[in-house]
Amino acid sequence: MKQNIYDNPTFFKGYTELRDSGITYNDFLEQPAMKEAISNLEGKTILDLGCGMGGLSKYCAANGAKKVMGVDISGKMIERAEKDNRHENIQYLCQPIEELQLPSESFDLIISSLAVHYIKDYSALVATVYHLLKKGGKFVFTTEHPITTANKEMNGWITNEEGQRLHWPVDDYHEEGLRKDHWYVDGVIKYHRTISSLINTLISSGFTLEKVVEPLPTTEGLKEMPRIIHENRKPSFILIQSSK
Amino acid sequence: MKQNIYDNPTFFKGYTELRDSGITYNDFLEQPAMKEAISNLEGKTILDLGCGMGGLSKYCAANGAKKVMGVDISGKMIERAEKDNRHENIQYLCQPIEELQLPSESFDLIISSLAVHYIKDYSALVATVYHLLKKGGKFVFTTEHPITTANKEMNGWITNEEGQRLHWPVDDYHEEGLRKDHWYVDGVIKYHRTISSLINTLISSGFTLEKVVEPLPTTEGLKEMPRIIHENRKPSFILIQSSK
Repeated sequence: MKQNIYDNPTFFKGYTELRDSGITYNDFLEQPAMKEAISNLEGKTILDLGCGMGGLSKYCAANGAKKVMGVDISGKMIERAEKDNRHENIQYLCQPIEELQLPSESFDLIISSLAVHYIKDYSALVATVYHLLKKGGKFVFTTEHPITTANKEMNGWITNEEGQRLHWPVDDYHEEGLRKDHWYVDGVIKYHRTISSLINTLISSGFTLEKVVEPLPTTEGLKEMPRIIHENRKPSFILIQSSK
Repeated sequence: MKQNIYDNPTFFKGYTELRDSGITYNDFLEQPAMKEAISNLEGKTILDLGCGMGGLSKYCAANGAKKVMGVDISGKMIERAEKDNRHENIQYLCQPIEELQLPSESFDLIISSLAVHYIKDYSALVATVYHLLKKGGKFVFTTEHPITTANKEMNGWITNEEGQRLHWPVDDYHEEGLRKDHWYVDGVIKYHRTISSLINTLISSGFTLEKVVEPLPTTEGLKEMPRIIHENRKPSFILIQSSK
């Protein structure tokens, strides 16, 4: 079953309020890493998997992409994307990533920002991406870091009585699969995968690994959102860049 | 300063007693992963970095390698290697890995079993290995897993009052560098590196990443040494295979 949590009204309200507040954790962490990895967008044909409200698709179009296709399972998200991040070079599509039916070798660059941990069948996704990429094209995605998703309890940092963060508890590392998290609503489904799985699936599908990034907070982030400093202690995200 | 802990008498006694007891944790975990990765040894010229008592060098020679050079900083270890794991196709050399002066493109395969975490300058090591490998040659090494080495306290599992292991504490992940551990003696020096550092240094030095393995215990290991089951919860080692 494909999860469509973004169409849950409570989740959607919480998520859009967070986005609309104008400042989010990812803006100082995952997004800068993603934008640095895709710095050369001029004339490119791009597929944005799990485009959400279209912020990254819009960024690509505004920075020279010839054509961007933004895909998301959530109708509410695509609606917001059409409203807030419309651009003549972008086409938004409401569809599960898993069911994409597009001609092979269509894209120069396939990106996915924090959506891969919602996908149950990572191997199938990687095979689809490989099929859709032109020869020499790149696949750049970010996902929750295996250190973050491993523990089935998903209760976050271990703190002392004063609420100070003592350390991050890792457990269940090699038990890949379902994790249930609370984010606005109970039971947000994620999939934990080990680092070796994330990487080896790409390589055995034909990709060449180019870079792994474990994003660190930007200087601005440390000023605007001091708690982000804990990223130095435990990585929340991982970016993996590979080419066909 | 290069660490030569294996020549410390207390350490050497503890370590050799462990090895001589005939059964060690690594035999069911790291060694099977290493041996699987280097399954094709026939006719190969091999460099074994940090060969210790020569067990793996001997394994290579016994499994068809044409020539094996085993290098270790510890005179005591090389003495044991010469005594216990002598073979006509093996040459043992007592030298710091960092100071190897050998002709370029000398080896088909360079291996290193649990020595890289003792090396301060990983970039220099990778550059040396690249220089010494023939075109198409492979570099296969195991090292302590970044999840294991991150926390500066190095106090192991968090346990409850009954001694049950609750979880593994990750902290200080992005602070690469020195870690002081206790293993037979105080102050055994290790170097923590992030996953992205371990991988990106190889790629930016010219290597193609082929495989990452986070070893799981063998069936025999689970029977002979039941506590090894905790490896499912937190990986102790990582194997990285790349080619020139």
